[in-house]
Amino acid sequence: MPDTSDIRPGEVAIELPGAFDAGVYFIGRIRTPFKTRADCPKNTAESRAIGRVELDPRYAAGLQDLALYSHAVLLYWMHQARRDLIEQVPAHLGRPRGTFALRSPVRPNPIALAVVELVGIRATTIDVRNVDCIDGTPLIDIKPYFASTDSVAGAKRP
Amino acid sequence: MPDTSDIRPGEVAIELPGAFDAGVYFIGRIRTPFKTRADCPKNTAESRAIGRVELDPRYAAGLQDLALYSHAVLLYWMHQARRDLIEQVPAHLGRPRGTFALRSPVRPNPIALAVVELVGIRATTIDVRNVDCIDGTPLIDIKPYFASTDSVAGAKRP
Repeated sequence: MPDTSDIRPGEVAIELPGAFDAGVYFIGRIRTPFKTRADCPKNTAESRAIGRVELDPRYAAGLQDLALYSHAVLLYWMHQARRDLIEQVPAHLGRPRGTFALRSPVRPNPIALAVVELVGIRATTIDVRNVDCIDGTPLIDIKPYFASTDSVAGAKRP
Repeated sequence: MPDTSDIRPGEVAIELPGAFDAGVYFIGRIRTPFKTRADCPKNTAESRAIGRVELDPRYAAGLQDLALYSHAVLLYWMHQARRDLIEQVPAHLGRPRGTFALRSPVRPNPIALAVVELVGIRATTIDVRNVDCIDGTPLIDIKPYFASTDSVAGAKRP
């Protein structure tokens, strides 16, 4: 349950709906060198660490042909994050910003995405470069990265 | 429920787990010109269509400062897709490929991602360019696009 004591001044919590609309399966885990949130790099650009995706054997056949791609998108479930903050005050910003303008793990659906380099694929494990999540994070999807649609090199940010 | 009659030769279905591991909230809907799956473009690169994200007013404050970014990632729930195919035979390929090497909506967690250009943001609606999903698709997240981590222009694909 969210602990309201960890809200910073300026942050805004909302009441979430009383029921979920759909369910997700955890299809594996991501093993990384980062044992706590404090250990994690701020984002994948700061991390050249090698992580290992451990896929539940049930889904092993889903990796067929993934090695044809150099990069993939991992979607994972930030299981330690509260879900009810709609405005947050990042330490580097010092003032509130909307949750949908942040990549914080704290969001109504705590799903993160990371673009990773595929280093080695075996039966149910994948070694990847550029991981930033805590060791043991539940995996929910793997997608091939398509530069044609996923890469917008000139996208602007503040 | 999956209709096994729509499996193509060479496709493989698995038994999914008996229970979900986590739940998602639908936080809005995506309005597009595409009323059926047959109407949808194959991917966002083929679509310059303008779509409209309609956010549940509960989450309106989450959009604060999103306009500082030119692009965003939308995560949405492919509510019409079956979830149990682990190898699929795309029409353009003619042979089986693993689900995690495809961007098909059919996957254990039917979450799609699209990188969209932010055209206009109001209180609870966002006009976006490059949408490819069916009208009414449930939205589950909006994230600012960070070229530094999300753009890999040289990523290889077959």
